[in-house]
Order: sequence, then structure tokens, then C-alpha cells
Amino acid sequence: MDRAETPSPPAEGRAHGVVLALAGGVGGARMAQGLARVLAPGDLAIAVNVGDDFSHLGLSICPDLDTVMYTLAGVHNPLTGWGRADETWNFLETLGRIGGETWFRLGDHDLAVHVERTRRLREGESLSTATAALCAGFGIAHAVFPVTDDTLRTRIDTDIGVLDFQDYFVRRQCAPVARAFHYSGADRARPSPPLADLLGSGRLRAIVLCPSNPWLSLAPMFAVPALGALLDARRVPVVAVSPIVGGAAVKGPAGKIMRELGLSVDVSGIAQHYGDRVDGWMIDERDARHAANLREQGRTVALADTLMTDAARSEALAREVLALLDRMPGPAV
Amino acid sequence: MDRAETPSPPAEGRAHGVVLALAGGVGGARMAQGLARVLAPGDLAIAVNVGDDFSHLGLSICPDLDTVMYTLAGVHNPLTGWGRADETWNFLETLGRIGGETWFRLGDHDLAVHVERTRRLREGESLSTATAALCAGFGIAHAVFPVTDDTLRTRIDTDIGVLDFQDYFVRRQCAPVARAFHYSGADRARPSPPLADLLGSGRLRAIVLCPSNPWLSLAPMFAVPALGALLDARRVPVVAVSPIVGGAAVKGPAGKIMRELGLSVDVSGIAQHYGDRVDGWMIDERDARHAANLREQGRTVALADTLMTDAARSEALAREVLALLDRMPGPAV
Repeated sequence: MDRAETPSPPAEGRAHGVVLALAGGVGGARMAQGLARVLAPGDLAIAVNVGDDFSHLGLSICPDLDTVMYTLAGVHNPLTGWGRADETWNFLETLGRIGGETWFRLGDHDLAVHVERTRRLREGESLSTATAALCAGFGIAHAVFPVTDDTLRTRIDTDIGVLDFQDYFVRRQCAPVARAFHYSGADRARPSPPLADLLGSGRLRAIVLCPSNPWLSLAPMFAVPALGALLDARRVPVVAVSPIVGGAAVKGPAGKIMRELGLSVDVSGIAQHYGDRVDGWMIDERDARHAANLREQGRTVALADTLMTDAARSEALAREVLALLDRMPGPAV
Repeated sequence: MDRAETPSPPAEGRAHGVVLALAGGVGGARMAQGLARVLAPGDLAIAVNVGDDFSHLGLSICPDLDTVMYTLAGVHNPLTGWGRADETWNFLETLGRIGGETWFRLGDHDLAVHVERTRRLREGESLSTATAALCAGFGIAHAVFPVTDDTLRTRIDTDIGVLDFQDYFVRRQCAPVARAFHYSGADRARPSPPLADLLGSGRLRAIVLCPSNPWLSLAPMFAVPALGALLDARRVPVVAVSPIVGGAAVKGPAGKIMRELGLSVDVSGIAQHYGDRVDGWMIDERDARHAANLREQGRTVALADTLMTDAARSEALAREVLALLDRMPGPAV
């Protein structure tokens, strides 16, 4: 079946399969939240980037998993995009007093997750199992899991050398000029058991690329061979929600990175980056001028207000994304 | 020189030597605070029990070192006897929510010390070095160090079996009947470098046994062979401040333990326990009836109000203890 836009009813069974959302960072968490408000737990799985994970103060910290978890639990800080709402900072205050490292902001509530996850990992639990336990503690019904339980670390090749992710992102505030991205360990990374189970279940309905940073949040996931192969095989529709709105990133360094990589900071630049892996595009109404070009390339395109400034807007966008999916051609197999 | 009470001026040089306080728990911390308000940093060293130390949630927790440190820094909680004043509990609240262990109360400020110490120990620092760094962070000028950097763990043989210290003390609130105490690892424990340096310096003026629990706080320290041998050799005066006042422990399970061991819960019971290792007794005015008996045994005795309900009273008691030391016979060598 060709991938040109052909209005068609949803194939029998597709509408009841599982939507796999690939998420990382704030945009990913908000899209996941919207989808979780629309889809039943059995119909949505959220695979999360682990390229930002790192060890700090002896604790295993997984920023993207936590942002997704906190957002789904409704305890996230909507202003910062990371960490908890109603947070306190007494741990960090005393840590600073005794000369500890305070550049990575760990709130008192937040810290419990890092300590408990670290304890579980040290006792031999996988990151998937530990994540499931933490999410259960927060009352999250939908499946949230890391893309892999293996070690996968994003490193950024910059004008001042190759930097670890958190060194680049938090400590240096993305100031260095990015030249290339490395996903260390990705070539040996197996999909996490919940992801492998889903991929092998025959129940996968579609993949949604959340509006996360393509290089920092999604590319590390694509670099997991099993997931990259699935995207290349094009067995299920892949819909991308553009992280670029009106010629700028909604949040974070995506726009800066695109300029540094010589890409135009607009939907076409993102589309150029994702290439043939994406069948359908959800772009912002402000970017309507890019729709024709995407359609010429055989993509299905939908327009919406894509700014997820609160949970209701995330839900509304999720409904638009699912409507777009219903308009998509069926799987190629 | 005999050890009978013979009023004598302080031996030349003794008054400028180092007083070594052996401390653990609340009574130890308050006595140490009082001594630190009277003696210059070069004239006081505080060796602290490590028998209560344990690993919890992957963190190295040293309750007695922390209580001494917090008290000397003036950030201790005077009501509980452990932890920080103005503490918050958001870490523990979230930890409970996600199913973590909350029976050991870790406050948000307090946690920073455990995380930073654990990080330092994991990176290969000794407990002595880590303690010095933490104390420096809290602006403590006096030397505070663990009695040993080696692993030494108090275990309590009870009517329901042998219990780890925190299991007995915190989780079971000292309810089981104690039969005997084991100080696991003590026989192989070397004195910590700062303690060894002091013992080898020739500058030791006297030893003060703080009013800490004799079985839970001080006996683990005596079980370190180098310190036990020093006490047995009786080279310097040893003064004990009684933890029993008016027939009851000021705080904690000392009275209950004494009953369980068949000792009378009074100064004579404590004196019987310490035996010949103590030359001088600081007892409470309420226990004056025991003074004659102690003097008959050749001890120097002083009476005072020994309840250290605030820092000023701790300081006043410290002055009484130092006055008692000045009345003591000189060293036997």
C-alpha cells in the first residue's frame, strides 16, 4: 500500500490496538498526558527516552521518565517543566552548606523518587520494573517504561568538546555549539521488556512521535536498533507532532540546535530530519504554509493549535492526533 | 600514685592537654556541646560511637555522629534529640507514597548529610575524613571523629532473638527484653586516625565519659581494643557523668536495660558497670546519697545539676566537669 494521503476508514482492529507514544522532556510528557486522558490504559503505551539519565550524588536520575511520571500523576511543576509542584529545597540548602554539588536541582519530594529507584536498581531490579513500581505509587494506570533497560547515554559533540548530556543541558545551559550527537550504548541496547512485548504482540496500532526535542529526546530512542528497525519497516503509521511552532521551539534548545546543524528552524527542517520515517504530521495552525509541501511528499497532514499550555489543551491535541491517525492509510503489511 | 581522693592542684601541663570526650546519643551530644563552649578547639576532641551506624535506602547513616554534629552546630532538634530543627518531611511523604520504607525518619535537611557522606564514602574517603568535611560545612571548629573507621555494629541479644541496633532501637522502640550486647567487628576495629593520633600524641589530659547510654553508646567504643586498653591502663584520669538521675535515665532505654540486666537503676548500678575504669564521678545533686559509697571506693566525686536542658546548662555542667578534673589525682605514669 502506498503512503499517499487516501481518506479511508480505520482498518478493522486498528482502532483497538495500542498507540505507542515516544516521549522525552516536557513536550513528550504533555502529549503523553493528553493521550492518557483520551485512551484507556490498554490502548496506550508510553516509551520514554533514557539518554538523559545519569548518576549524580550516587543516585540514578532519569529526568525524562520522571517528567512523564510527574505529569501523568498531575504533580509536575508546570512552570519549570521539570520537577514537582509545591516542591521544597531543604535538602539542597543543606547540601550546599556542606559543600555538596548543587548545580542539578533536586527538590525534597523529587529526591524520594531518585533514592527509591536507586535502591531498587541496586537490589537488581530492572529500570522497567522500578519505573512500573514508581508509577504505581503515583497511581498511574497507563504503561510508562524506558525505551531500554540497558545503558544509553546521549553525548553532544560541541565546539568545546564532547559533553555528557547533563553537563551540556543543565550545567552549561546548552550554550556550546552542537556539531553532532552520540547515543553511547545504543547499538547494544535491547528494547525494554514492556516495549519488546508490545512490538511482538501484534497489537501495535500506531506510533506517535511526541513534540520532544528530535535530537536530544527522540533520536536516542530511534538509536535502539529494534525501535529503529520498526520505524524503518513502516509496518504501522507513524505520526509526528511538530516541536517547532511558528519558527521556534516551544521550549528548550531545539531551535538553537537546528540552526547549528544548518537546518531551517521550521516544520520543514523537522520533516527533513525525520525523513521517510514519518507518515503523518500534526503541525500548528501557525505553520499552515508547510502543509502543502508535506502533502506533496505523500504525508497525511493535520493542523491544530498544538500549544499544550494545560491538561485540557493536551487532551484536545491528543484527540486531534487520534483523528489524524484515523485518516491514515492502514499498515503496509 | 594511688587513686584515692587527694585534693591537689592540676599537674603542670595537664590543664593544657586535650580532653577526650566519648559521646553517643543525646546526652553525649549535649555534654560535647557544653565542653565545646568552654574548651578551645585545640583542647577538646570528641570521639563518637559508630555502633548505631547502618545502611538504609542505600545511604550510610551515622546517627550518633549526626546528633553530635547537629548539636555542636546548633541546628539540632532539642525536642526529639535527633535530627534537625525546622525540619521538613517532604522526602519521606513522597517516599511513603511510592511504597518506600519510612520507619526511619529522614528529614529533608538531614538527608543531605546522608547523601553527601554516602557519596564521599563510595568515592573512597574514610568515615573520619567525611566527618571532618561535614563538620567543616557546619562550621564546627572542634575535632569530631568516629571512634573507628572500621565497621562496628551493635547487636542486641533479646528475648525475641538477636536484633540489629536500629531494628531494636527505632523500629521496635526498645520493647524486646535485652539479655546481652554484641559489638560486631569491634575486636578488629582500629582507632580512627584522629583518635590514634591523639592517643599517640602524649597530649591526652583526661577522658570524659559523657552521659550517654553505657551499653548502647559507650560500650561499643570501649570494645575498640586500643581504647579499651587505654581505659584499662589508667594513664589519664577518666571522669564519668552519670546518665542516671534520680533513679531514672534522663532519656532513652538505659533504665529499662539496667533492670533487664539485673542492675539497680541508680548511680551505683552505673558505677558497678563501669568498675575500675572510672576515677571520677559527676553525679546529680538528687543522687547525693551515692557519693559516700563512691568515695569509699576511692573515686573523686562532684555533685551538680546535671540536666542539660539547654546549651547554657550544658556549658555550666562542662565547667563543673573540668573543675572535677582539676581536683583529680594526676596520671599514674
